[in-house]
Formats: sequence, structure tokens, C-alpha cells
Amino acid sequence: MKVSALEIPITRTNQSRLPEVDFNNLPFGSVFSDHMFLADYYDGAWQDARVVPYGPLSLEPAAKVFHYGQEVFEGMKAYKDKEGQVWLFRPLENQRRLNKSASRLMIPELPEAIFMEGLKTLLRTDSDWIPTVAGSSLYIRPFLFASGNGFHASPSDRYTFVIATAPSGAYFAGEVHVRIEEKYSRAANGGVGYAKAGGNYAGQFYPTQLAKEAGFQQVIWTDDNTHEYIEEAGAMNIFVRIGDTLLTSPTSDRILDGITRKSILELAEAEGIPTEVRKISVSEIVEASKKGQLKEMFGAGTAAVVSPISGYGYRDERFDLPEVADSYATFFKKRITDIQYNRSEDPFGWRYPVS
Amino acid sequence: MKVSALEIPITRTNQSRLPEVDFNNLPFGSVFSDHMFLADYYDGAWQDARVVPYGPLSLEPAAKVFHYGQEVFEGMKAYKDKEGQVWLFRPLENQRRLNKSASRLMIPELPEAIFMEGLKTLLRTDSDWIPTVAGSSLYIRPFLFASGNGFHASPSDRYTFVIATAPSGAYFAGEVHVRIEEKYSRAANGGVGYAKAGGNYAGQFYPTQLAKEAGFQQVIWTDDNTHEYIEEAGAMNIFVRIGDTLLTSPTSDRILDGITRKSILELAEAEGIPTEVRKISVSEIVEASKKGQLKEMFGAGTAAVVSPISGYGYRDERFDLPEVADSYATFFKKRITDIQYNRSEDPFGWRYPVS
Ligand SMILES: Cc1ncc(COP(=O)(O)O)c(C=O)c1O
Ligand SMILES: Cc1ncc(COP(=O)(O)O)c(C=O)c1O
Repeated sequence: MKVSALEIPITRTNQSRLPEVDFNNLPFGSVFSDHMFLADYYDGAWQDARVVPYGPLSLEPAAKVFHYGQEVFEGMKAYKDKEGQVWLFRPLENQRRLNKSASRLMIPELPEAIFMEGLKTLLRTDSDWIPTVAGSSLYIRPFLFASGNGFHASPSDRYTFVIATAPSGAYFAGEVHVRIEEKYSRAANGGVGYAKAGGNYAGQFYPTQLAKEAGFQQVIWTDDNTHEYIEEAGAMNIFVRIGDTLLTSPTSDRILDGITRKSILELAEAEGIPTEVRKISVSEIVEASKKGQLKEMFGAGTAAVVSPISGYGYRDERFDLPEVADSYATFFKKRITDIQYNRSEDPFGWRYPVS
Repeated sequence: MKVSALEIPITRTNQSRLPEVDFNNLPFGSVFSDHMFLADYYDGAWQDARVVPYGPLSLEPAAKVFHYGQEVFEGMKAYKDKEGQVWLFRPLENQRRLNKSASRLMIPELPEAIFMEGLKTLLRTDSDWIPTVAGSSLYIRPFLFASGNGFHASPSDRYTFVIATAPSGAYFAGEVHVRIEEKYSRAANGGVGYAKAGGNYAGQFYPTQLAKEAGFQQVIWTDDNTHEYIEEAGAMNIFVRIGDTLLTSPTSDRILDGITRKSILELAEAEGIPTEVRKISVSEIVEASKKGQLKEMFGAGTAAVVSPISGYGYRDERFDLPEVADSYATFFKKRITDIQYNRSEDPFGWRYPVS
């Protein structure tokens, strides 16, 4: 084992839950591995990095995380290849984005070494938890939250950083029909939409529930001002294929700068797929649908990688998407997962070995 | 003691912290009373209502409150009059608003009986914690959060309701200068701004910090689309007095329907103060300033009751507000606190006895 500059003591569980896990029937993100990584911020510094058994956190009722949503998170995965080598996918992008999110919420940035060494130490400790069944991976959830106390709406003086993991199967099952949302919104101009801030997600639950009751699985978010431009697909970035052109909305302070989105854009460029990063209006999509030019829509994010959309609803109309033989969604999903699981070359240097 | 329909078992602390409290030097919201009220939602119902010693909550790292900000809160106060009688101020408004906030975040509504009986039982248990020093009160923090586990961005299946209290002094100290914010926003159209949702508050910390670095104490939020209309003052509703007319912004899905705001509007009507509830543009305020017609601006909320604003900054200009002899802010603060502390009649029926 490589000795890291940062000393991370490991306290091992004496009651592994591994034998209870059915790796052939993994849910998404609800079976938790034996250990977790922790670090605390107090007296103005991040400290006490450690790996301990996964288990309850103890917090005062006045902890600011319960009141003011001062919390940010990341989502990433670890993949085990046929030789048993463990890989991450562009982990430094997650590390940087966590700090970007943290800054917006006045949470002190976490040093790269704590994030990366903590993550690697945890993965080594729980390497038996990384699934090898096809389509499965170890979902990794790093999160930062305000653990200091007080009923005054102001930043906390203490924070906690946790990495917990969950061996997971596929995120979505079945066909995905989406509703283009015209009433509710997920983000404001000048707000926190670009951050992986907890509050952004709770705000989506109710509109998503309404969409479900109307027969859809997800919501396509539009800008909160005109509801004319599509922005994200649930908790994923959105891609649209009109003719053979791949379109995606530009990132902004309302849209998360997704790592999957970024990777798809790079793959598309390498492949010579015509791409446009620009505002996409709902009327343009509907028009393309009516002309038979709307070939694909899909969400892109770490959990599902690529999530094809089978149809969408807008106002009182419903539109189906065609089945296309040369699906971009299928192509990108294969290219990305082949790189992630070390089944192909990695011309972009995205794979990161955990040794 | 009145026997309530709801049975609320009380577990008392055997180590009261009351003797350590200096009631003459109370901070705001950071000294916590001996007990708290708890209830849990599981198997589809709110249950296990109980009063226990104030102390740590134990939650799994995967609890959704840490990840998705599925959490809402309320802020209220208990007041002790000269005879030792304890009063609340319009508590049913808080109870209803908590549920309004909860619904927006897909948190199951809490029955009125659990809220009210829980609150009263807690206040009776900790009645010695309710301060009598002038200007002090017992700050009450009811909050609801997702305690179920999972890394899937979807509503929780378990929730926890807590009421904790903190004997508190005045919320603000010193002059308040505000910056009219033109870049950052607190709420989206179709978002959760009208809810007391945790994430709304963490999103304010950074812009408020920037305002502080520029020499202001607070931010005046404007609409996220045009930044032309003022909406709230930090975590308070905003009032402006131009000439002798009292103005406040209409509530919307971006603005919290404040109980203090509502009470001020009713008092103004009873007093014959001309009032307009309508959108207030920044240019109108600046113009009124320049003409000497802007007499007052103040924030209104439970914590500070009324918080007079001494000056404001807009773009590169700074404006001072005059000292007025017949201040509305002073008038409303006195009228409201006189009712709260039972120093005057209560023509509106706002006072609620805790017996
Ligand atoms: C709102 C939102 N958009 C997009 C994404 C996709 O980002 P990434 O590809 O980095 O997982 C996520 C996270 O998964 C998200 O939460
Ligand atoms: C955003 C916001 N606006 C306004 C208020 C004022 O509401 P109330 O008068 O009910 O305390 C509050 C809460 O105090 C608030 O959080």
C-alpha cells in the first residue's frame, strides 16, 4: 500500500455486512458498504481524516444542516475491471466541483489531498464491496455539511465531510417519458442551481410527483422566467438530437456543469458528430417532432450515464420519440462505460486507477 | 395541567443546565433549553410524540436530510408577562405555514394536534427557561426533516419533527445598512422561495458575506429576472415608507408570507395608515430618496420584529435614510411587542395563552 502524505487511520468493523449482500440484485444507493471516510472542519481547518465503520452520525438538533440546508454533495462511481483493478472516472472533476458548490454555500473548501486520499483509502478498505456483475458499480457519495449549532441564519463554524459508498445496480428501469415543466422551476438566475446543493433536489420532488401522477417518470426543467428553454432533465443534463445534430444547453448559474455532459461533448467532437451548445427552445423541439426531425432526447449523469427518453409531454400534447438504429444515446453509453470499466482504450485520460 | 387528547410522555433531564444561563446576557438562538419535543413519521403516520432531554440526534450518513435538503422549519417565540403567564403569538399561523412548506418539499403534513400539544407540553416542561428580562423571549424552532436513508434523489420514507427552544436576546444590534442585490437571488419563479425550506437560507450566506465585505449588514433581494423589484430583506419581509404611505411587496411563490408582515398590515389598516401592497421598483425607491420622500425602510420578521434600515446601497451609490420623529417602525414594534408581552389589549386576538 502506498504511504500517503496524509495519515488516515483506519478503524475496521468487526462485523462485516458483506455476506448479506446479493450482488445479483443490487438496488441503487440503498445498501451501504462497511466503512466510511470522515473529516471535520473546526478551528478554521479541515482535520481528523479517518476511515471508520459506516454508522450513525450524532448531531445536535441545532446543527445548521437541519435548518439552513448548508450542504453540498457529489456523485461518482468506482468500477472493477476483469483483472480486479479498480478505476474512477475523472475524479478530480468531482473534487473541484464539490469545492465550487461549497464556496457558493459558504462552506470552507476541502483540500484536494483529503478528498483524494480519503477516497482511495476508503476504496482500498472496502474493495470487496465493488461489484463485478455487469452494469453494477460502487456508487460513491462524498458530502459536506454544516455541523455547527445555532438558530441564527448564518454560516456554521463547523463542518463535516463524509464519503459513503453503496454497491449499486442500474439507476433507471423501464421507459422514461418526461414532462416539459412550465409552472415549477429548479433554479433562479443568480441562485444555486449550478451547485450540487441539497435544497435544489428537495425542491424537485413535488413537481416530479405531479409529473408522475400525470403518467411521466421525469421532469424537463425550463428556465424560470419564460419557461421557453429547456435546461435539465430531472437531475441530469439534457441532450437533444435534431436530424444528426446533437444539442445541449450551455451551462449557466442555473445548470450543473455535468461531467457526463462534458465527456459526451468531447466524445462527439472526436467522433465528428455535429454538436451545438446553445439555448434550446421548447417550440423548436415540438416543431422538430412534428417534422419528424427530432430523433433522440436523453439525460446524462453519473448515475444512469445516459438515460434515453421515449417520449415527452408539453402542455396538452404528447410526443413519442422514434426508435433510431444509429442511436447516439447507445453509442455514448457504450463508449463511456467501456472506458469506465477498462474495456477499451482511454484516449482522453479519463480513467484513474485506485492502487 | 389540562389533559390532552394526545398522550405525550415526558422524560426529564436529571442535569438541568438552567443554573449556567446568564439571562442578562442572552445571545440569539445559541443557548438551548433542557428539553425538546420529538415525533417521527414512519409506516405512513406521524407517531411517538414525546418530550425528552435536549441532546444529539442519531442519523445514518445516508439520511436524505444531509443530501437533498428535504427540510423545513418555523420560527416563533414564547413571551412571559409580569404575572408569569406564558403567551404565544399567532401560533396557528406557524403551524399552517409549516405544512405549506412541507407540502412543497413532499414532506408529509404534521397534524395540528401534534404541533400544538407538543409545543405546549414542551413550554410547560421548560417554563423556567422563558426569559423575563426586557426584550428577551424564548425563541422556538420547530423543524421537520427527512430521516430516511438512500442515495437516490427521491422523497424519504421517514421524517422527524423536532421542537427545540433557546432563550434569546435581541436579534440585531447596531445600525443596519443594506445592499440592493442585483446579481444573486434567493428564489425562482415556480421555486420554493415561499417555503421556509432550508436550502433558501444557505443560498443567501455567500451574497450576504459579499455585502458585508462591502460594508453592509444585509441584502435586499430583488426578483431574479429583472432585479428591478425588491422582494425581501435578508430573512425578513420588506417595508418601505414613501411620504406617509406604507408599501410592501405582495407575497408570491418567491416571497415568504410572513406573520409579522401580515400583522403590520392589519395594524396599519386599523390605524388608518395608508398602505399599498404592490411591486416596488428600485428606481422608485432611489427617486423617492433623491426627492427626500423616502422616509423609512424596515425588515419585519419574528426574530427582530421590526428591523429599521439606516441606509442602502444600490450600484455605486449609497443613500442614507433620515431620522423620522413619527417612525412607523417604532410604532409597529411597540404595538406588536405590547401585544406579545401582554402589556396592552389584544383587539385582534393574536395572543395565545399557554396554560
Ligand atoms: C442537477 C444535475 N444535473 C446534472 C447532473 C449530471 O452531472 P454528472 O454527469 O457530473 O453526474 C447531476 C448529477 O448527477 C445533477 O445533479
Ligand atoms: C425569508 C423570510 N422572510 C420573511 C420572514 C418573516 O416571517 P415571520 O414574520 O412569520 O417571522 C422570515 C422568517 O422569519 C423569512 O425566513
